[in-house]
Amino acid sequence: MHRGGKISVRPTVDVADRAALAMAYTPGVARVCTAIAERPGLAADYTWVANTVAIVTDGTAVLGLGDIGPAAAMPVMEGKSLLFQRFAGVDAVPICLACTRPDEIVATVAALAPSFGGINLEDISAPRCFEIEDRLRALLDIPVFHDDQHGTAIVTLAALRGAARVAGKEFGQLRAVVAGAGAAGVAVTKMLLRAGIGDIAVSDSKGLIYRGRESLNPVKAALAERTNRANLTGSAESALAGADVFIGLSSSSVAESAIAAMAPGAIVFALSNPDPEVHPEAAGRHALVVATGRSDFPNQINNSLAFPGVFRGALDTRATDITDGMKLAAADAIAALVGADAAAGYVVPSQFDQRVAWAVADAVAAQARADGVARR
Amino acid sequence: MHRGGKISVRPTVDVADRAALAMAYTPGVARVCTAIAERPGLAADYTWVANTVAIVTDGTAVLGLGDIGPAAAMPVMEGKSLLFQRFAGVDAVPICLACTRPDEIVATVAALAPSFGGINLEDISAPRCFEIEDRLRALLDIPVFHDDQHGTAIVTLAALRGAARVAGKEFGQLRAVVAGAGAAGVAVTKMLLRAGIGDIAVSDSKGLIYRGRESLNPVKAALAERTNRANLTGSAESALAGADVFIGLSSSSVAESAIAAMAPGAIVFALSNPDPEVHPEAAGRHALVVATGRSDFPNQINNSLAFPGVFRGALDTRATDITDGMKLAAADAIAALVGADAAAGYVVPSQFDQRVAWAVADAVAAQARADGVARR
Repeated sequence: MHRGGKISVRPTVDVADRAALAMAYTPGVARVCTAIAERPGLAADYTWVANTVAIVTDGTAVLGLGDIGPAAAMPVMEGKSLLFQRFAGVDAVPICLACTRPDEIVATVAALAPSFGGINLEDISAPRCFEIEDRLRALLDIPVFHDDQHGTAIVTLAALRGAARVAGKEFGQLRAVVAGAGAAGVAVTKMLLRAGIGDIAVSDSKGLIYRGRESLNPVKAALAERTNRANLTGSAESALAGADVFIGLSSSSVAESAIAAMAPGAIVFALSNPDPEVHPEAAGRHALVVATGRSDFPNQINNSLAFPGVFRGALDTRATDITDGMKLAAADAIAALVGADAAAGYVVPSQFDQRVAWAVADAVAAQARADGVARR
Repeated sequence: MHRGGKISVRPTVDVADRAALAMAYTPGVARVCTAIAERPGLAADYTWVANTVAIVTDGTAVLGLGDIGPAAAMPVMEGKSLLFQRFAGVDAVPICLACTRPDEIVATVAALAPSFGGINLEDISAPRCFEIEDRLRALLDIPVFHDDQHGTAIVTLAALRGAARVAGKEFGQLRAVVAGAGAAGVAVTKMLLRAGIGDIAVSDSKGLIYRGRESLNPVKAALAERTNRANLTGSAESALAGADVFIGLSSSSVAESAIAAMAPGAIVFALSNPDPEVHPEAAGRHALVVATGRSDFPNQINNSLAFPGVFRGALDTRATDITDGMKLAAADAIAALVGADAAAGYVVPSQFDQRVAWAVADAVAAQARADGVARR
């Protein structure tokens, strides 16, 4: 399946004869160039740019494999390009970079920007990914979206809405523990806070993040201010006692006994891939709703439910940014497709539910207009 | 034809169900990534990289339109991508850059390099294009080829071989005048010298380039040392008296009377587009062979005869460079397709002659092996 790669750049017009060639290429193409030079907005109509996304990685945090470099990251980026086209008709170009310093990545992506309608950052390690995304969003007038952060956050929030409904729990009253403070852990936590969840405790490899903990990086220090109401110390496992929700984004493991100590009607999202933090069968003995990132168990929480539709909606409106509101709208659109059908084994739609990308695109486009970032 | 652009990124594998998706994307793709991380050479087998070319421009010298910027350059780059796929099965990605300083362009292209099997530089103004290409060739282990220079030079040399045959003139004895000392003029001159042509005088907007002329840039000063045997001063038109060959690459014009003063059996390549230096009908009243860059006259000299096959041959051998020998081999392969059929109206094959790209590819691949730059 992977031999020779999984994508190709193909003509969408036929140049069967000399006359067609003279129109598609020189000399005919000169008229199109001149028109765009005079009215730059025409580039969106007469080039492929408005429908393209660059999938940009430096290969430093690929899947659960870590820093494997740009060449080894390419198969993932091609897979992602394939999904962009299949689910949302977006032309996505993998760009695997031979540099890792934020300055270099920002300069490179800024230089490429005229070629693309949007930038999907991918598999860039934390905390560099936060700075790179922030700087590019400020610099560019096209959407910049780090999928490991926001794609994960959107699908997780959607699934949690479904799960809370199944458990009959009030969303704003949920007490959650998020294991992992990398790209996904940070973005999921911020998004859940924005969505109004009651209390979240976040852990990294050194245990819970609390106010006053030594040597927190700026991102984690900011998180400490907004999470962990009781300012618990210790491990994520210890914080699970009585908690409603566990969200694992850490590649670590959680003991079955810790899951057993959660509140009745517990919700467990063990999202590490390919090895969930707790095996879904073990979690299922104690929790009401169990989700993973895997396709061989129910409730697969996968970014591919989000990113195709998010970019479709942003490109269709020629949005200058993907706002927090657009991300929340995407999550709500996914949750709405499940709606009253939510069940312990069905808190998110299937990846092959053809409605998903278009529902997300519509919601994102509407919110882009509401937030004033749409250019049409 | 240009609405919405002329190219698209498409899957080459089908992901019709959950099992196929789990293989193409997570978790199955992780095996492929790990294999490449352990043996980098496998990237050529299990990604699309070995079949891809980045078409990189900064939009500073687009067609005859000049510095119209990266956005307005895109329609040309898409047209080029379309030809790469149609004629040689190469996946070509347009990259239009928002920077113009050589340092920035070199750094950006170097950062992108792991994503591509080759770099086609395009429509970058002289003399920056020479420095940028030289530095990237030295820096990267994939082929870097500035098409405005070498594509033009290859097809011009091929056509001149055919024209000399028609005129019954000895190639090494030809006296030529090249009008234009930009990317194409410089590269054509160097290639003709390498091919053994006798004497060439080159002009720029200030007239003939001669030893001792003031304020020549380094590229032109080097040219002055190797051309213009008689060290003529004055205009290109004045140098045409008694010359065998005129090659126009200048966007300037040449009087019909200057063409009339050329040697009997004269060869006129008026390659400026869309307006040749001299109208082909006027030139035809005096010259034996007339060629232009236009599709509506005989003998169209167009880079598309060269670049698809050149990159096909370089990619097929995973060449680390495109050597001078490979460029000469490409020209000879094109000339050989015309061979003994050469006539005043047929000194180069048609762009739709399906043999061209594959003949060029074979010749380039063989020469890559002979020159020791092939990796397979």
